Amino acid sequence: MAGNDKKLVEQITSRDVDFAQWYTDVVKKAELCDYTSVKGCMVLRPAGYAIWENIMHGLDKRFKETGVENCAMPLFIPESLLNKEKEHVEGFAPEVAWVTEGGSEKLEEKLCVRPTSETLFCDYYSKIVKSWRDLPQVLNQWCSVVRWEKTTRPFLRSREFWWQEGHTLHETSKEAQDRTIQMLNIYADFCKEELAIPVIKGEKTAKERFAGAIATYTIEALMHDGKALQSGTSHNFGDGFAKAYDIKFLDKESKLSNPFQTSWGMSTRIIGAIIMVHGDDSGLKLPPRIAPVQVMIVPIQMEKEEVVSKAREILERLKKHGIRCKIDLTDKRPGYKFSEQEMRGIPLRIEIGARDIENNVAVLARRDNGEKISASLDNIEEEVSKTLDNIQSNMLDVASKFLDSHMSVARSTDEILSHLRENPGFVKAMWCGDRECEDKLKDLDGITSRCMPFEQEHLDDKCAICGKPAKHMVIWGKAY
Amino acid sequence: MAGNDKKLVEQITSRDVDFAQWYTDVVKKAELCDYTSVKGCMVLRPAGYAIWENIMHGLDKRFKETGVENCAMPLFIPESLLNKEKEHVEGFAPEVAWVTEGGSEKLEEKLCVRPTSETLFCDYYSKIVKSWRDLPQVLNQWCSVVRWEKTTRPFLRSREFWWQEGHTLHETSKEAQDRTIQMLNIYADFCKEELAIPVIKGEKTAKERFAGAIATYTIEALMHDGKALQSGTSHNFGDGFAKAYDIKFLDKESKLSNPFQTSWGMSTRIIGAIIMVHGDDSGLKLPPRIAPVQVMIVPIQMEKEEVVSKAREILERLKKHGIRCKIDLTDKRPGYKFSEQEMRGIPLRIEIGARDIENNVAVLARRDNGEKISASLDNIEEEVSKTLDNIQSNMLDVASKFLDSHMSVARSTDEILSHLRENPGFVKAMWCGDRECEDKLKDLDGITSRCMPFEQEHLDDKCAICGKPAKHMVIWGKAY
Repeated sequence: MAGNDKKLVEQITSRDVDFAQWYTDVVKKAELCDYTSVKGCMVLRPAGYAIWENIMHGLDKRFKETGVENCAMPLFIPESLLNKEKEHVEGFAPEVAWVTEGGSEKLEEKLCVRPTSETLFCDYYSKIVKSWRDLPQVLNQWCSVVRWEKTTRPFLRSREFWWQEGHTLHETSKEAQDRTIQMLNIYADFCKEELAIPVIKGEKTAKERFAGAIATYTIEALMHDGKALQSGTSHNFGDGFAKAYDIKFLDKESKLSNPFQTSWGMSTRIIGAIIMVHGDDSGLKLPPRIAPVQVMIVPIQMEKEEVVSKAREILERLKKHGIRCKIDLTDKRPGYKFSEQEMRGIPLRIEIGARDIENNVAVLARRDNGEKISASLDNIEEEVSKTLDNIQSNMLDVASKFLDSHMSVARSTDEILSHLRENPGFVKAMWCGDRECEDKLKDLDGITSRCMPFEQEHLDDKCAICGKPAKHMVIWGKAY
Repeated sequence: MAGNDKKLVEQITSRDVDFAQWYTDVVKKAELCDYTSVKGCMVLRPAGYAIWENIMHGLDKRFKETGVENCAMPLFIPESLLNKEKEHVEGFAPEVAWVTEGGSEKLEEKLCVRPTSETLFCDYYSKIVKSWRDLPQVLNQWCSVVRWEKTTRPFLRSREFWWQEGHTLHETSKEAQDRTIQMLNIYADFCKEELAIPVIKGEKTAKERFAGAIATYTIEALMHDGKALQSGTSHNFGDGFAKAYDIKFLDKESKLSNPFQTSWGMSTRIIGAIIMVHGDDSGLKLPPRIAPVQVMIVPIQMEKEEVVSKAREILERLKKHGIRCKIDLTDKRPGYKFSEQEMRGIPLRIEIGARDIENNVAVLARRDNGEKISASLDNIEEEVSKTLDNIQSNMLDVASKFLDSHMSVARSTDEILSHLRENPGFVKAMWCGDRECEDKLKDLDGITSRCMPFEQEHLDDKCAICGKPAKHMVIWGKAY
C-alpha cells in the first residue's frame, strides 16, 4: 500500500530553498484549500475550514463579550449606493464584480458583489437610527466578499475570501475612537493567545489608509521569510460616511446630529499567517488552541487487539477531558501516519504499542520541537493537557524571538535598504510624515510603511529618508 | 415616557383578520428582518440573525455527530460548469443572477451567483476523489444563495437567502439512500425537539422533485393559516451527476465506477415557520430552546435600589445556571416593556417588585399561555428551568394538536376541495401516480401534492382524483 513513509514530506519544497513554493506545497499537502474551476476563487477544504471555524468561534466569543451582535446584510450593492461616498467608491470600484443580468433579464441598475459592506450598513443605519436611544449600534457579519484581483495566492489574495466585518455607530467621536482601538486590541490578543502569533499594533500612514477612513489601525505579523502580513485592521470613519449616507439622530439636546462610525475586519488571510509563521519543512504546525485535531493517537502493531483497545480507551479519556482527539486506524504504516500528521500540523501525537502497555506508558511526540516524552497512562489526561499548553507557549516564544531578532533600527535610507536585504524583517526608522518618502522606498525596493506603532521611540530627530524633522517612528518592511 | 403601553401590540394586524399582514407586521415589529435598498434582498437584523445562529449551532452539532465536515465552495459558477447536468440547468438557469463584468472588464465567460452548489461540489469531487479510500465524502457548507425571484416575502422567498447545503458522495447506491433519509430524519427531529414544530416526512412526487434528483424527500409543516411550508429537503441523485461531471473512483475490485450522491438543505425559511406556527396577536412566540433570550427580568419600581439589585442578583444566578437571560433596565414603563418582550417572543418574563422581595418570591409570566406563577427566590433557577421545559413541551403539544385537527381524509376531488376550503390544512387522499391528477388540483384551486408520507395508509383502492387504481397516499395542501 502506502509506499515510502517519507513520501508526503519529500514532495514538499524546503522552506529555505523556495519559500513561495514551500507555502503552496503545504497548503496543498495539508489539504487546506485548493483552486477551483472558478478562476481566482478558492475552495476551503475541510481541514482548512475547520481552522477557520475555530477562528470564527474564538473571535465571535470575544466580540460578543463586548456587546457585538451579528447580522447579515445583502450580498449585492446597487451602483448608486456604492457611489455615495467618493473616496470609498474610488478605492473599490476598479476591483469589483458586477451583476448585470438576473432571471434572464438585463438589470435596470447593475449590482456589485460586495467588496466590503460599509455602504450597506450605512443604508441600513440611515433607516433604523433615529435617536440617541438607538445608539450605539455594534453589528458584525461573517461572510465572504469579492475583489477582482489579477494575481491570486491561496489565503493571501483571492477573488473571494471569507471574513468578518464589524460596523459600529456612536453618539460621540470619542466612543468611535475607543471602539476602533478596542477591536484592534481584540485582534492582537487573539493572535497572541490563540494563534501564537505576536503582532505589532499601530496606525497606518495616510497613504495606506482604508478608502474613506480618517484613521486606520493595523496589526502586522512577520512571516518566516521576513515579509510582513497585515493581519487585521480597524478603521475610524469619523462622521464622513454618516454625512454621505444621511445618517442622523436626535441627540440628548434634541439636536439632529451625524453619528460617528467604525469598521474592523479579520479574514481567512490569517490562516496564511499561521502557515508562514509556524510551518517548517515537515509541513503545517498548528497551535493547539486553534488546531481542529489537537492529538492523534497512533496504535503501533494494529494487529494486536489489546493495543487497539487501549488506544481507544485513551481516546475516550482524552475526549472526556475536553481534548480534541482522533485515532488513526487506517491500514497505513506508522511512519507514514507520522509524516502525514506532521504535514497536517497536528500538535501532539500519542504512540502506543504492546511494550508501552506493559510499562503503563505512552509516547507523546510533540510537533513543535520533535520532543518525545514517555507519559504514565495513570494520568495521561493531565500530561497531555500540560504538554498542549507547553506547545502553545513554546510556539509563541519561538515566534516572538523570531520577530525580535528580525527587527532592525535604521537612521538612513541606505540602512533601511541594507537591513532589509541582510536580515529581512521589520525596520524601525523615523519619518517626517511626507508621502514622498514612502513613495521613494517603495520605488527603490518595494518597501512600505507597515505602521506607526503605538509604542513610539525617539530614535533620531530627523526623517531617515529625507532628513527633515521627524514626526513619527515607522515600522518599514516588505509585505504580502 | 413611551406613550401607550399597548402601542406595539395595537400596531399589528390581528392574525385572523389578515394573516399575511399579521406576518409582515410581526417580522417588522419583532425586528427580525427588513427589506433593503437592494430589491428583493433582506437584511437579517440582530434579533432574526440570533435565531438563525441558534438554528445553525443546533443543526451543525447534529450534522457533525454523523461525520459531516464543513467547507466553503466559491460563490460563483461558470456558465459552462452549470450547463453540464441537463435537468439541473433547466431547473435553475431561468432564475439566476449573472456576473458579466469584473475589475472594469467584460468577462470572457459569465459566472452565475450560486443558486445551489451541486455543480461546484461535483467539480471539486471530480478532482479529489480517486479511490474507494476517498469515500464517503460528507461535506456541508453554510452560506447564502441567490435566486432571482419576482415576488418576495421576508424569510419565505427572497432573492438571497441563507442556508446550509450538504453534498455527499458514496460507494454504493444504498449508502447514498441511507444518508438521504438520515439527514431528513435529522431535520424532522430538529424541528420537533428544538423548534416545537411537528412535521410530516415523505417523498415528493416526480413533479415536485429537485432538478436532477432521482428522489426528493421533504418535511412539511403546517402554518396557522392552514398553508403548508416545505421546511427541509433531502435529495438522492443516484449516479447522474457523477456521470455528468465525470466523478470516478477505483472500487475495491479495482474497477472504475461512478459514486452515488446526495444533497440536503434547510434555510432561513424555517424562521418563517417558527413565526407562523407559534405566533399570535401579541407577536412572536419563540420556543425556549431556540430563543436567543429565554428570560427577561423586569424590575418593577426601578427607583428602588433593592429591587434593581435583587433583579441583578437573579440575572447572575440564572446565567450561572446556563439560562440565556437579560434584564430590562430601560426607562420605559413596565407595561410597555411587557408588550415589547411579548412582541419579540421572549418565552419567560420575570417580574420582581418590593413586595415580591418581602415575600421572597418573583412572578414568572409565560409567553406561551399567559400564565403567571409565583416562584420562591430560594430555588428560582430550578423553577425557571422547569418552566422553560414546560413551555417548550406545551408549544409542541399545541402545534401537534393543531396539525392533527387540520388533517382531513378525502376520497374524491370534491372532498379535497371542500376540506381545504372549510378546514384549511392537509388532506390525505389516494393517488394513481399520474401527473395529470396533480395538474388538475393545481388548476382547480392551487392545491399541490406536499408529499407521499412515509406513514402510508390504505384509504381506498382508487385515486381520489381520477378513479384509476391508487398507488400512493398523498398529503395535499396549499403551500407557501
